[in-house]
Amino acid sequence: MCIHGRYFVCSFFHAMKYKVSAPKDPSSDRFILSKGHAATILYAAWAEAGLFPKSELLNLRKIDSDLEGHPTPRLNFIDVATGSLGQGLSVAAGMAYVGKNIDKASYRTYCLIGDGESAEGSIWEAMHFAGHYKLDNLVVIFDVNRLGQSEPTALQHDVETYRKRADAFGFQAIVIDGHNIEEIVRAFDEAAATKGKPTAIIAKTFKGQGLDGVSDHENWHGKPLGDKAGSIVKNIEERIAGNVPATIAESPVEDAPVVSIKNIRLSSVPAYKKGETVATRVAYGTALMKLAQNNSRVIGLDGDTKNSTYSEKIKKVSTHNYIECYIAEQNLVGVAIGAACRDRTVAFCSTFAAFFTRTFDQIRMGAISQTNINCVESHAGVSIGEDGPSQMALEDLAKFRTIPGCTVFYPSDAVSCERACELAANTRGICFIRTSRPATVVIYNNEALFQVGKAKVVRENPGDKVVLIGAGITMHEGLKAADTMATNGIHVCVIDPFTIKPLDADTIRSHTLRVGGKILTVEDHYPEGGIGESVACALSTDANIIVKRLAVNEVPRSGPPEVLLEKYGISSNCIVNAVYNLLQ
Amino acid sequence: MCIHGRYFVCSFFHAMKYKVSAPKDPSSDRFILSKGHAATILYAAWAEAGLFPKSELLNLRKIDSDLEGHPTPRLNFIDVATGSLGQGLSVAAGMAYVGKNIDKASYRTYCLIGDGESAEGSIWEAMHFAGHYKLDNLVVIFDVNRLGQSEPTALQHDVETYRKRADAFGFQAIVIDGHNIEEIVRAFDEAAATKGKPTAIIAKTFKGQGLDGVSDHENWHGKPLGDKAGSIVKNIEERIAGNVPATIAESPVEDAPVVSIKNIRLSSVPAYKKGETVATRVAYGTALMKLAQNNSRVIGLDGDTKNSTYSEKIKKVSTHNYIECYIAEQNLVGVAIGAACRDRTVAFCSTFAAFFTRTFDQIRMGAISQTNINCVESHAGVSIGEDGPSQMALEDLAKFRTIPGCTVFYPSDAVSCERACELAANTRGICFIRTSRPATVVIYNNEALFQVGKAKVVRENPGDKVVLIGAGITMHEGLKAADTMATNGIHVCVIDPFTIKPLDADTIRSHTLRVGGKILTVEDHYPEGGIGESVACALSTDANIIVKRLAVNEVPRSGPPEVLLEKYGISSNCIVNAVYNLLQ
Repeated sequence: MCIHGRYFVCSFFHAMKYKVSAPKDPSSDRFILSKGHAATILYAAWAEAGLFPKSELLNLRKIDSDLEGHPTPRLNFIDVATGSLGQGLSVAAGMAYVGKNIDKASYRTYCLIGDGESAEGSIWEAMHFAGHYKLDNLVVIFDVNRLGQSEPTALQHDVETYRKRADAFGFQAIVIDGHNIEEIVRAFDEAAATKGKPTAIIAKTFKGQGLDGVSDHENWHGKPLGDKAGSIVKNIEERIAGNVPATIAESPVEDAPVVSIKNIRLSSVPAYKKGETVATRVAYGTALMKLAQNNSRVIGLDGDTKNSTYSEKIKKVSTHNYIECYIAEQNLVGVAIGAACRDRTVAFCSTFAAFFTRTFDQIRMGAISQTNINCVESHAGVSIGEDGPSQMALEDLAKFRTIPGCTVFYPSDAVSCERACELAANTRGICFIRTSRPATVVIYNNEALFQVGKAKVVRENPGDKVVLIGAGITMHEGLKAADTMATNGIHVCVIDPFTIKPLDADTIRSHTLRVGGKILTVEDHYPEGGIGESVACALSTDANIIVKRLAVNEVPRSGPPEVLLEKYGISSNCIVNAVYNLLQ
Repeated sequence: MCIHGRYFVCSFFHAMKYKVSAPKDPSSDRFILSKGHAATILYAAWAEAGLFPKSELLNLRKIDSDLEGHPTPRLNFIDVATGSLGQGLSVAAGMAYVGKNIDKASYRTYCLIGDGESAEGSIWEAMHFAGHYKLDNLVVIFDVNRLGQSEPTALQHDVETYRKRADAFGFQAIVIDGHNIEEIVRAFDEAAATKGKPTAIIAKTFKGQGLDGVSDHENWHGKPLGDKAGSIVKNIEERIAGNVPATIAESPVEDAPVVSIKNIRLSSVPAYKKGETVATRVAYGTALMKLAQNNSRVIGLDGDTKNSTYSEKIKKVSTHNYIECYIAEQNLVGVAIGAACRDRTVAFCSTFAAFFTRTFDQIRMGAISQTNINCVESHAGVSIGEDGPSQMALEDLAKFRTIPGCTVFYPSDAVSCERACELAANTRGICFIRTSRPATVVIYNNEALFQVGKAKVVRENPGDKVVLIGAGITMHEGLKAADTMATNGIHVCVIDPFTIKPLDADTIRSHTLRVGGKILTVEDHYPEGGIGESVACALSTDANIIVKRLAVNEVPRSGPPEVLLEKYGISSNCIVNAVYNLLQ
């Protein structure tokens, strides 16, 4: 237990308040091991605290053991998976924000960060956030052990620079000798007494401290001790003074009762008129507001785009239900994951679709963390128009589709968008909702029912020749195309998939077989990984089905939305031509 | 031109050295507008400098004009696209690093950052990098105008905090009134005279300064002036003293001659023995070294994983060919993009496959930037074993496949991996090479020829019943399966796609038709967006072809690689079973 630091032992056994009988009790202090590769120390601490037999530690990294190479919530004492560096502090900050401002409870949050990972920008996004919101219930420990994986860190043992950085980001910064128990205990006590700002404990340490021939030496990262093991283990055993079990300092104050986040409904049914035009992003704002009216644990988070994504509507219910995360999207998602931990909130985080791209690693790790968050993006695809390609997400469906267990909603009108939000609030795992910038026609009755994995057949006719599948803006282009073709006596079956993952392959298949085996997909997305690939692959084991796909095949440019839809081959005209080609 | 700051005008007309006749001359100073939404000021400056007629400015954001909503290299004076905030400084730092350490030339690099985007972690990754490498040829201007898009920034006009942060990250920090020309000029002069550290000019400004009813007011971000336009334009015109054309201060020192990055070959052919085992990541290191031996402009960049990706081998050629970027992957890719600008280097950046996930937005923007970089990842998929899911990239093929023009290599042995690197060095655009952690058998002769978009038929027999497609570790599982089945008289055609994008659909199709229409794909990747979807979609308009796909269908856990391959359904046994099922 000596390798990764006495500060950890001190935080765990001296400073933290928790119950071994209920490791994730909502009132207990939280601990995030951002440097997940130090998992062994965390496992050892919980074994020492009595959560499971110490003999279990010998099953580390075996296929049948939950003591994996890096921590995951398969273990009942882990809130989130770590191991992709730099992500833990955002999660911890989200927990601390909720503790201070939503739970208004006594629990505190601790986060242990490696010095190597402190080069990650996401750490500084989280520092900025925690400093700005004065999260004095948050303690960050920087383990400054000087050595990275392949060479020394950039700052090595320059603890003064860490101190200056933490101070400049709004933290109380305390520099200590990380091997001196008294200094460590004093620092935690000082942190607990500090009001108005979070605390950063900068602990100067030596990697492998006390291990002869290893301490402060390079090339020992993640490596077994080999032939040094015998003498080192013997030495450690000699230094362990007796075998007195560690005790936990204090029980938590029970002031964060369990809250209900089940069965959250819109406070009123959608109220649109068929045929009126409403952007799905506006409907998202309305739905978020209605969900928060129904359950005060529904929160919105945004990265300074709330007036474009319409997440700002939730502030009409209560400003306490909204967390402004400014322009720092990795932290936005990390804070949402932290806020959702232990079922304290139902978090909806939103920004422009393109800007979610840089949160992919947080979302990937979110799935490993078994998180329960909702990501809502506006401004997808070329239909955003003049702002140009930097603001056009055209790979977002591919990204979210890869995530195990992710539910991918792509509502095509305001009614279905409100219902997508309601379903997302009640669907575990990561939910993703793609909304669009332009106003589009309301096509469903307010009473229409929607389910995850159930498509809607929007138009059908006994003489249909092709199944046409679009979503969002391309659903409306598809309907226009269908109207045009119908005047020429060509009928197509138009299907709204509603969720791209899971995809309603059964409905698509049955209508495709009915029309003779031909499908046309059309999407405001690159060809890879979106609706077309999803449909083609769902039916790839069906012989005699042909899937033709229309998508955006190159980096687009700025211009009016309707011109871009035409130029990049996904307008109603392009659909008509593609159907005619399919029928030849 | 007054809206986005006089500091910009001063840098452009006073401090910078460039030739209007050759906006991207290698010896000229560089300017990156990280806050790409201020594109209009950049366009106006180049028009003022005489690059194109001022009348062209009226075509802003029109479909036929390259004056897009945010800058892109469709314009001959733009190095990289900006508009996804927080990315410009990494690119600028890459340019400055190359200028100082590789070109050893006089040109300087300027980067204008918004205060809103300075909440992005990628900014602080770049600050850390520039400070660590003492890039005194880099000047960063923070435009502290207090207002974000939807509300004031977190720090508003707290320039002292910006100063402290810049100082703590190793910059000379100069706070100025951003509307005072004399202060601005003095700051640029001071920056030019500073040695040993980069300079940050913290400019306190007012958004919309001088515009009556707009200056320092919220809700004007990105909005036309509406009925205020007339009076405001009149007021500006009155304040323009005469119509004297601006002049450029000085011509650049011509000390960065054009270099050749064409026709870069391995310094020696691959030298393996068929049947020996070599990890493709090791072959990558060897290839990188051989390419650098052949052309001194080949560089390697890594994020403290060089001893695992084997990029460290390039240091044997020269330490000048390697840039350590520490654990900050967004900046790693941004620096590579900067280093590749104006064809100064051929950049290979590497890290663990999983950690490239958080660079997705840099890569997305890289494509819009028409960049020419190579991304090489090791440790893909469950075959990494005991480290667990946080370290297993299972969505990386999906990510890179979406990128327009991206070439996706997935070599299956050491010979083909070396050739993939050689091809990547000579292929414009973003190239991506997926390497594996475990040692695998060399299957090709050293003389084998490889081409982008050309698959290799590794095994074929007149009696083949199925086409089997794998890559990397699953190619070897496939070959084992083929051996097993052959002993039972069942023959399969094994195809190595070599590049997943572009995919050699013709070869796959012709062999599939030969064997009777059945394909089995197997990949160490999630089912979405990888090899299986690529193959299924390439053949989705071919009736009578069935594609069955094996992939990793859930978040995996830690364990020995061979156990994980079996558990997640992509081992040789699973392949045998799937083939038998296909044949029933």
